[in-house]
Amino acid sequence: MKNSLSPSRPVREVGVRRINGSAETEEKDCLAAEEPLEIRVEGHSVAIVMRTPGEDRELAAGFLVTEGLVHAASDLVEIRHQSHCLLPGRNRNSRLKEEIEAVRGGEDSRIAPETGLSDGNVINVRLRNPESFDLKKLTRHVFTSSSCGICSKASIEAVRQQFPPIEDSCELEPQVLLGLPQSIASAQETFKRTGGLHACALFDLTGRLLVLREDVGRHNALDKVVGWALLGERLPLRRHIVLLSGRASFEMMQKALAAGIPIVAAISAPSSLAAEFAQDSGQTLVGFLRGERMNIYAGAGRVRQLARLRQGSAIMTS
Amino acid sequence: MKNSLSPSRPVREVGVRRINGSAETEEKDCLAAEEPLEIRVEGHSVAIVMRTPGEDRELAAGFLVTEGLVHAASDLVEIRHQSHCLLPGRNRNSRLKEEIEAVRGGEDSRIAPETGLSDGNVINVRLRNPESFDLKKLTRHVFTSSSCGICSKASIEAVRQQFPPIEDSCELEPQVLLGLPQSIASAQETFKRTGGLHACALFDLTGRLLVLREDVGRHNALDKVVGWALLGERLPLRRHIVLLSGRASFEMMQKALAAGIPIVAAISAPSSLAAEFAQDSGQTLVGFLRGERMNIYAGAGRVRQLARLRQGSAIMTS
Repeated sequence: MKNSLSPSRPVREVGVRRINGSAETEEKDCLAAEEPLEIRVEGHSVAIVMRTPGEDRELAAGFLVTEGLVHAASDLVEIRHQSHCLLPGRNRNSRLKEEIEAVRGGEDSRIAPETGLSDGNVINVRLRNPESFDLKKLTRHVFTSSSCGICSKASIEAVRQQFPPIEDSCELEPQVLLGLPQSIASAQETFKRTGGLHACALFDLTGRLLVLREDVGRHNALDKVVGWALLGERLPLRRHIVLLSGRASFEMMQKALAAGIPIVAAISAPSSLAAEFAQDSGQTLVGFLRGERMNIYAGAGRVRQLARLRQGSAIMTS
Repeated sequence: MKNSLSPSRPVREVGVRRINGSAETEEKDCLAAEEPLEIRVEGHSVAIVMRTPGEDRELAAGFLVTEGLVHAASDLVEIRHQSHCLLPGRNRNSRLKEEIEAVRGGEDSRIAPETGLSDGNVINVRLRNPESFDLKKLTRHVFTSSSCGICSKASIEAVRQQFPPIEDSCELEPQVLLGLPQSIASAQETFKRTGGLHACALFDLTGRLLVLREDVGRHNALDKVVGWALLGERLPLRRHIVLLSGRASFEMMQKALAAGIPIVAAISAPSSLAAEFAQDSGQTLVGFLRGERMNIYAGAGRVRQLARLRQGSAIMTS
């Protein structure tokens, strides 16, 4: 089946049989695209990410930050797609197989000649100091999440060693947090079309939206935000809030910590380990941020008291 | 901080500062527990799963089914927790560190003497034919998901080779599917308390709920259901429906395929790759199953036409 949308678009059009009460129709529907992206470092394959195409450079950069390999834009020389032939008009499944074959072909850590196309599913990162790159260390650290469930044991150990706790004492009004969900509602373009994407958004302490990224994988969405910050030389994000459209797990907290983000707010529930991790890492964790309500599970000191506000006090910062 | 609930419970009580409009309170709140579970096969560590404690045996069994290692209960000799000291009254973080140390201690594929306690975070699976167990193959195949984002490349290849497409032609009324969400709403005990769990439920073709499992990780919830079926000698699940409380990704479809499940229904959106995978695998994929509505993205032939129903036709099965 030929697809009218490019494979690199975040939305894919599919046929659907729609049932609504007693009405039944055949229609077109838009789904969030999910495709593999192979991330290579100096030509070595380090991970395949099932992601929504778009902002692949940010995703690769952010992934390396949250894995503890990269700390500043100056650590990078280049991030570039390495395309291989995507045949339009072929069965998507055949195409997936070809993609896999292509990925496989590069397995032995050789980079095929770069084509310069931007729609490939392989991306290579070149480092300023490649001699400091320890492939074994990285692949050992690559891990996943509570939402999928698997991680290499090394990664759980590593997370507490790599990223120091946050110690600064920025403060903000509760109203700033309560206003965040509204800001992203209007910006979630792909979600509106597909209903199938997680979003992650970065704000400053006044509640100004700096960037929003969407992905089928919530961890990817956060990695893209972190990658955006890295490429713009904004790390660490010491005076920022990250808003998660879904739930907050252990791994989301540690990714935020890798970027130095002191405040994590989630529309849905945190896990118990997310709350404990936030406590131990000096992070503020807000959950169930909806309407006029929110729960603060850790680092409540960064959110000013409502009582003080009511007095109109000017001594809000300590 | 001492916790009144056992570490092995699916819910953990934490302190929370709750803001609701102009009201602010300090309260207790319940969060979904998230803890690491190390899965070992014949003493070899194959994965750490960040899971909600509970039904760990099912989780381990289901994990091995969806990784293609185990096909029937008769492949297993034993699944047993191997506990190590969990010290109550210690800081949870210290406890996590201890758990990690304990996990680390067993890294070199030796099983420590089993204590027989049921609340440990290490579980060992013994196989009937351990000589057929290829550790390298399994760890190569362990992969994750679009919701977290990382997988080993081998796994994407493997999924299409391991599990044959589904070819039977079971059929059901659309009303059966439309009734499923209501069935699980009342059964989602932990979700009601924490708001933080994914659920996965198995039904027969008449819509009868057979089992429901909850977990912080949606892939774990599905693995638990598959493990339940394996341990009850119900695999393959050729005449069953699995309902996902969230979204359907590529990996959820392939886990369902591993268990032989022909019909996957999701409350939320599928990804593009989930729809393509379902098409190629002979699976029926239903998304946005809410109220009187649903979208059928693949295998629509298994869902009878509304038109035929209205005629009261008896020739519903082909």
